[in-house]
Amino acid sequence: VSSPPLTVGIVGGGQLGRMLALAGIPLGVRCVCVEPADVAPAAVAADVIRADYGDHAALGELARRCDVVTVELEHVDVDALGWLSERLTVHPAPQIVATVQDRLLEKQALRRAGVATATFAEPSACPTGYPGGTVVKRRLGGFDGRGQLRYDGSADALAAADELGGPCIVEEVVPFDRELSIVAARSVDGSVACYPVVENRHVDGILRETIAPAVAADQATAEELVRNLLSSWGYVGTIGVELFEVDGALLANEVAPRVHNSGHWTIEGSATSQFEQHVRAICGLPLGDVSTVGPSGMVNLLGGWPDPASVLALPHAHLHLYGKAPRPQRKVGHVTVVAPTVGQRDTTMAAVRVLMDVRRSSSSEDAVSAPPCPGGC
Amino acid sequence: VSSPPLTVGIVGGGQLGRMLALAGIPLGVRCVCVEPADVAPAAVAADVIRADYGDHAALGELARRCDVVTVELEHVDVDALGWLSERLTVHPAPQIVATVQDRLLEKQALRRAGVATATFAEPSACPTGYPGGTVVKRRLGGFDGRGQLRYDGSADALAAADELGGPCIVEEVVPFDRELSIVAARSVDGSVACYPVVENRHVDGILRETIAPAVAADQATAEELVRNLLSSWGYVGTIGVELFEVDGALLANEVAPRVHNSGHWTIEGSATSQFEQHVRAICGLPLGDVSTVGPSGMVNLLGGWPDPASVLALPHAHLHLYGKAPRPQRKVGHVTVVAPTVGQRDTTMAAVRVLMDVRRSSSSEDAVSAPPCPGGC
Repeated sequence: VSSPPLTVGIVGGGQLGRMLALAGIPLGVRCVCVEPADVAPAAVAADVIRADYGDHAALGELARRCDVVTVELEHVDVDALGWLSERLTVHPAPQIVATVQDRLLEKQALRRAGVATATFAEPSACPTGYPGGTVVKRRLGGFDGRGQLRYDGSADALAAADELGGPCIVEEVVPFDRELSIVAARSVDGSVACYPVVENRHVDGILRETIAPAVAADQATAEELVRNLLSSWGYVGTIGVELFEVDGALLANEVAPRVHNSGHWTIEGSATSQFEQHVRAICGLPLGDVSTVGPSGMVNLLGGWPDPASVLALPHAHLHLYGKAPRPQRKVGHVTVVAPTVGQRDTTMAAVRVLMDVRRSSSSEDAVSAPPCPGGC
Repeated sequence: VSSPPLTVGIVGGGQLGRMLALAGIPLGVRCVCVEPADVAPAAVAADVIRADYGDHAALGELARRCDVVTVELEHVDVDALGWLSERLTVHPAPQIVATVQDRLLEKQALRRAGVATATFAEPSACPTGYPGGTVVKRRLGGFDGRGQLRYDGSADALAAADELGGPCIVEEVVPFDRELSIVAARSVDGSVACYPVVENRHVDGILRETIAPAVAADQATAEELVRNLLSSWGYVGTIGVELFEVDGALLANEVAPRVHNSGHWTIEGSATSQFEQHVRAICGLPLGDVSTVGPSGMVNLLGGWPDPASVLALPHAHLHLYGKAPRPQRKVGHVTVVAPTVGQRDTTMAAVRVLMDVRRSSSSEDAVSAPPCPGGC
């Protein structure tokens, strides 16, 4: 009658692991993370095994202690996930993680699932790029806009690939109107729940803000796209799909096989957060209600955070610090905004922006004299 | 610019400490609890010092590690709180905790703050009780309806006090229509935020359910009452005041100098939970918005919990397990319900009740064969 508590293993112990662990606790689900970094944000709410993601002793411990394993980052040793999947359930499946690690395999798998993407090719098949604009990307390892070269028109794709090093993909530049994303989850029994399509605003390739829901986005098409993807891939868990909106049409850009930064607003903005949803999905529990509480938004705290009191004084703002030491451009927290009206949401988001600008301008002046952050921050 | 993280000491490491610790983490606030029990529900999200609440070595460690100390239960050694308050800030003040530990001092302090209560006296001053009904209670230590004797009319209060043992208080039985409560918080700067008055349903003296907000309750009078109390006592933190509603008038019954079971619905039902509000208040941070998300309710899980999947399958239900082993009448979790309409809220609460009834009837049959709960539950 009283089912025993479940234990979830997480490869990675960063802020996503932290928020997964926090979401699991009220459900009776405990998390155990594998994380090599000295300071693991997840450690406040999960047990952390200090080891490389591929360390077999650590993975053995994970297999012994856990009922199911998941990832909080996609750049993990897929062989390690495969090893784990011979011993216990791994969600999403290691093969899916391997696919999205490689931009070429990812785009091919999207196309096979019937999902539209930008035109792409291997460099040898498209040596002069695309007249409308060319981007050459490393197939492996790049994120936050790193590991890629962009050209306004055609380009020497082979030379660009040589410069980047390693296998590359050539993509046509998409003249998109907005960057959108959809976060969804699929359960073990195949049921799917989709959050509203959101708009994402990047600076220097790093997500700065999310607006939820996106104004006048094509929710039905985005849901169809992500449902096709989830069922075609047999995916279990929360997924984030980054989309380009071009003349109202949607092209899939990247897939995150995990909870996604553009879904952080769901902690307060949805009846069920993306973190709880992921825990539910991978534990075989029913998916939760994804109704929204009100117009929402998220501002990433990059490089540092404003005085917490100044954020907490703002109406409709919710502070989320990750326990990471501040470093330039590092994601150290976020602020969720959930307000009764779009106007109030926008006012608070603007106020958070001002607080971050004040912080940046003052911290650049006293960067030398600033004390190092204590161990717990 | 980037203020250092704060550490909050909590005397007690039960479910209230657990939910305080969970609320603190996103704000960058870490909790350290003192708790003698082997299984401390707070341990999943806080450091726990295993020691008696009055253990001086433990308190010394708390004083060294923390910026401010609070309590999650009122039945603590007040001398220990006093010792701590000579070394760091303690909220609420030890004197307040001492007052509410003693039902006579508590009622006298309520009266001094201008708050109406039932008629009461010391047994020697009221040896025959009250013709309308008499209740004799131990001044110290009773809770959840224990440590008291009730009589329909007059009674031999001195004999009752002898039977109960220890100093007692005699109170007139109040023919109340409903049991209500109000949870509020006062910050270091004196600002106050009040949640809606809620209705509480007890069985055998133990809170079974809360309905938030209570239908047609006198919010203005309740707020005036709790504001008088908070400012008169110089209280800092979240407080719970249990009220009797008699012909529409409100009488204060008991005060909890801490977060309160009747405020658990605020985790999902309010923009700011009572737990985050307490952390904000005692850390000198601005109080948060207490707007409600929708009609809410809370069902305590007493003695055990239903299959988590069955709760999570209910629309508008949020599961909160405390990591405690099931025992008869023990609070081992709660379910929050937040719905768009009162009807949907009531439907889900009824469904939770059914799940608990099913659990009770089945668990009584296999109580002997049921395996012991594993350490983590």
